[in-house]
Amino acid sequence: MDVGADLREELWATAEALADIAAGVSLPLFRAPELRAANKAARGFDPVTQADREAEAAMRAHLARARPRDGILGEELGVEPGESGLTWVLDPIDGTRAFLSGATTWGTLIAVNAGQAPLMGLIDQPYVGERFMGGLGRAAMRRGGVERPLRTRPCAALDEAILYSTFPEIGTPEERAGFEAVRDRARLTRYGFDCYGYALIALGQVDLVIEAGLLAYDVQAPQAVIEAAGGVFTDWRGRPAHGGGRVLAAGDPRLHAAALDLLARVPEAV
Amino acid sequence: MDVGADLREELWATAEALADIAAGVSLPLFRAPELRAANKAARGFDPVTQADREAEAAMRAHLARARPRDGILGEELGVEPGESGLTWVLDPIDGTRAFLSGATTWGTLIAVNAGQAPLMGLIDQPYVGERFMGGLGRAAMRRGGVERPLRTRPCAALDEAILYSTFPEIGTPEERAGFEAVRDRARLTRYGFDCYGYALIALGQVDLVIEAGLLAYDVQAPQAVIEAAGGVFTDWRGRPAHGGGRVLAAGDPRLHAAALDLLARVPEAV
Repeated sequence: MDVGADLREELWATAEALADIAAGVSLPLFRAPELRAANKAARGFDPVTQADREAEAAMRAHLARARPRDGILGEELGVEPGESGLTWVLDPIDGTRAFLSGATTWGTLIAVNAGQAPLMGLIDQPYVGERFMGGLGRAAMRRGGVERPLRTRPCAALDEAILYSTFPEIGTPEERAGFEAVRDRARLTRYGFDCYGYALIALGQVDLVIEAGLLAYDVQAPQAVIEAAGGVFTDWRGRPAHGGGRVLAAGDPRLHAAALDLLARVPEAV
Repeated sequence: MDVGADLREELWATAEALADIAAGVSLPLFRAPELRAANKAARGFDPVTQADREAEAAMRAHLARARPRDGILGEELGVEPGESGLTWVLDPIDGTRAFLSGATTWGTLIAVNAGQAPLMGLIDQPYVGERFMGGLGRAAMRRGGVERPLRTRPCAALDEAILYSTFPEIGTPEERAGFEAVRDRARLTRYGFDCYGYALIALGQVDLVIEAGLLAYDVQAPQAVIEAAGGVFTDWRGRPAHGGGRVLAAGDPRLHAAALDLLARVPEAV
């Protein structure tokens, strides 16, 4: 889809408005006592929170006014078909387990696609006050009114790489073995950073993120931000990953190729 | 040691000044390109950074003026004996691996002891702008000029508990097995949060932190903050942990007892 300057500006303004709206719902509930009570009622550990649902509903209400012809795919409230060819992909709180434990590694994910890979994406961490934006001409991070460019850093080899992942928490045994083959060669591995790991690649601070079991709304905003910053974002066979599943994100294409050599040996998911 | 109101006030003012001084050194280097260059020169992954050393030197210079008779124990620059009976315990950047990868879970740790357990402690995360303070009459968190009380939350049983740890990165095989015995019963486990996990216990957001291989400067500030907020902080046998080693920190004494039942089976470290 050809996106002219006016539409770019409108899409970015809408994306930022959505992030502000989501923050207006999520921030008052972050670290609030009532979240714990709601969660205790669920069986097992249910990361679906009041904040997640309410934030998505508020974002959808804004889109119904601002971009009524666009489609919506949201984590909590499903698919709303559109007529414009554009679809908003929304995850109001990526990292609900971080959110529920007061950690600041969760974020609001907002992306726009024209049917396939994202055209643009935004990762917002409103408590820390950071907004990461990529695509349609932008690759920038803003905090406290100061905007600076996002750029991945060079890192050619696994033994120089900092790797982030949500493993060992997720994945099948085969996926975990594939992850560990990369981890054993990486310089440093850190766990549990949710979407913030992708933001750190775009910032040029982290070199590699490897995950599995993702869905489209987990993936599209990070993909747009990382690609805009100069990185590579695919599945474990080097194919497009915008539908979710297994993700290999790297700041440097050479590092991406090195990790792919190991991950491509993992059998296809059934 | 009996600490009167005037001395309390002076110690807190000094601790806060030290945290400000450390932030003045560490923040300009956080996410700065020159950190990566310095690090690449080291063999393997050396988490000692320019920021760490310079921040501690600046804190020591302030103490030499403000509290010249107190002793100092610092991560980077060792022991400086004192005459007052009070010792400052300093870790300018706890979580250097987080610092080096741009993550915001590192912190500056400042504690004061009179020879044994800490009298007071402070955990500062200057990028996020959070300061956690406990002991000598205080149990408070301040951000953006707003101060609110710190209080651990009730959580009686492991199957309701959120557990944070730096495992699986550290520890002997026996220590890891002990940790995993608790983890297998906990509701949710998250990794890699450095000193921020202790702050989240004091905030009433996380229930349990289990670690091993710590040193006195890793431990004393978190201990003071957690105890002031109503939590329990011991080693894996329920003994004092202010010297470091294995740490079991819990927001609720009942949960501490439940975790201790499992961890006390781990053979003593040699």
